[in-house]
Amino acid sequence: MTQTRVLTGVTATGIPHLGNYAGAIRPAIQASQKADTESFLFMADYHALIKCHEPKTIQESARAIAATWLACGLNPDQVTFYRQSSIPEILELSWILTTITAKGLMNRAHAYKAAVQANEEDNQADADKGVEMGLFSYPILMTADILMFNGQKIPVGKDQIQHIEMARDIAQRFNYLYSETFSLPEAVVDENAMIIPGLDGRKMSKSYGNTIPLFEGEKKFRKLINKIKTNSLEPGEPKDPDGCTLFAIYSAFTDESAQADLRQRYADGIGWGDMKKFLFEFLNDELKDKREEYNRLMNDPAELDRYLAKGAEKARVYATPFLQEIRKKVGIAPMA
Amino acid sequence: MTQTRVLTGVTATGIPHLGNYAGAIRPAIQASQKADTESFLFMADYHALIKCHEPKTIQESARAIAATWLACGLNPDQVTFYRQSSIPEILELSWILTTITAKGLMNRAHAYKAAVQANEEDNQADADKGVEMGLFSYPILMTADILMFNGQKIPVGKDQIQHIEMARDIAQRFNYLYSETFSLPEAVVDENAMIIPGLDGRKMSKSYGNTIPLFEGEKKFRKLINKIKTNSLEPGEPKDPDGCTLFAIYSAFTDESAQADLRQRYADGIGWGDMKKFLFEFLNDELKDKREEYNRLMNDPAELDRYLAKGAEKARVYATPFLQEIRKKVGIAPMA
Repeated sequence: MTQTRVLTGVTATGIPHLGNYAGAIRPAIQASQKADTESFLFMADYHALIKCHEPKTIQESARAIAATWLACGLNPDQVTFYRQSSIPEILELSWILTTITAKGLMNRAHAYKAAVQANEEDNQADADKGVEMGLFSYPILMTADILMFNGQKIPVGKDQIQHIEMARDIAQRFNYLYSETFSLPEAVVDENAMIIPGLDGRKMSKSYGNTIPLFEGEKKFRKLINKIKTNSLEPGEPKDPDGCTLFAIYSAFTDESAQADLRQRYADGIGWGDMKKFLFEFLNDELKDKREEYNRLMNDPAELDRYLAKGAEKARVYATPFLQEIRKKVGIAPMA
Repeated sequence: MTQTRVLTGVTATGIPHLGNYAGAIRPAIQASQKADTESFLFMADYHALIKCHEPKTIQESARAIAATWLACGLNPDQVTFYRQSSIPEILELSWILTTITAKGLMNRAHAYKAAVQANEEDNQADADKGVEMGLFSYPILMTADILMFNGQKIPVGKDQIQHIEMARDIAQRFNYLYSETFSLPEAVVDENAMIIPGLDGRKMSKSYGNTIPLFEGEKKFRKLINKIKTNSLEPGEPKDPDGCTLFAIYSAFTDESAQADLRQRYADGIGWGDMKKFLFEFLNDELKDKREEYNRLMNDPAELDRYLAKGAEKARVYATPFLQEIRKKVGIAPMA
């Protein structure tokens, strides 16, 4: 059976929250279990340096992310799970691609253009004020992440489609200059990706400060669920599940029949206190064992290192000879 | 005794000619023999990709350059002589530095600005037309070349002074963000560097097509010396050595007393034919043994590989642990 190679990167600049779990981690782990899929999943720690010059944040985030994915059921024997920084071949490929990428292509990248626009709106004399080369050139590193493993399908949010198109452009240019080498990656946008609301009802996101960390202790977790905003309807009054944060979070993890049951309880006038207790218990059931495993892994960083070292080894079985081939094509090879 | 670490890169995009020998190779080899100097000398093959997308040229040039330096007396036990592409740590460092380099710094690089100006003079709508990211970001790779080994003195031409200043800027920023790590490199411009004229009397340079390859066969070499332009004064007529290409080339390899003797022969009316014979014999004496060694090495590429592998090993004794230290400072380290 032909397998499709799916490649997913996770930037290591935060501690995973419930929104990451529902929208990215859970579906990616489910997808990785399909027999027709070969999953490459990596922690993009070299990307994290673009946004974050705090070594402690980078380091803690990498640890939390690795522990989270493993605790949530990622099977490292089934997928190739590695740190980007453990594959030096990616950085070499990134430079090789840099030498064939038009600067004009980077000028058009959304993230860079947004930074320039913000400066212009601030009436800055220098449109590039505060822009670092990492932000400007990271579509090339992202291209190297993908092409190093000839990734075919790249699950991304809509804001990342442009980067996959750039990766295709760069791959095509290399193939044209140096002969057919890279397959052209395709963006896969999951239109049904779960976006869950946060404490204040807006999309749960680190930038809104409204997140529920995935693996807080049980007490803190209950407290946060209790803090979710609701309206002021009394117990006994019928309630509208649509637009209700509690209902939306529940829906992200359940099927239609379970949702229909809960709708009925809203219509019957369930009190917010009871509903929060119900949601807490439901989520806690889903997360309890995972939380325990997460805590165990967080307390055994050497085990995380071993998992990631094994993943890097697997990844390099592919990357090392492929980079040699690429180097040879551009003229960098042993002399004999 | 404290040694000064001198670091020199040679871009691998051409076959060395007599001008390279007089202006760069010979003085660098002499300098490398000083007891107070620790020399790092590398072939910048990853820089070569910026200008050249011809794998054969890159590959042949690397071979010719390695054979030339060794044939000219570079002692690989005394210096650290390596290919840039054999030190993957440089590429990792280059990315780390990319994430702390202001884009504005690159906007001001001479080579990039010259490309933009050429487009503007051509009335191109896109000022970045034909500009690749390699050209735009290579001052960062050059910074990584230097900082990876904490190079202190960097012999450069005047056009490269700006790049060394950029390397200092980037090193300072890293030291500020992540604690003292890199020493600040200094440009060393040799005001007395020999610039010799080529066949047509202009500076000998690949871009003028007026070069005398250093290690052509003896016959071809004689023929090229005979092609050097002179004036039409007859034998017996007194001649002016100043402004004479033959005299200038001879002077690049001799001391004042030898030059004074030759001045006398110009005054005595030496014929151009005799003078060319004299110059050929003089240079051939200087180059004969080296040419033989060059040819031997060119026919034994495995020996070149062995020399360069040993050099890379020496270089990585420094680079590998230093990169680990740098990675740790930015937050990329084993979890345990």
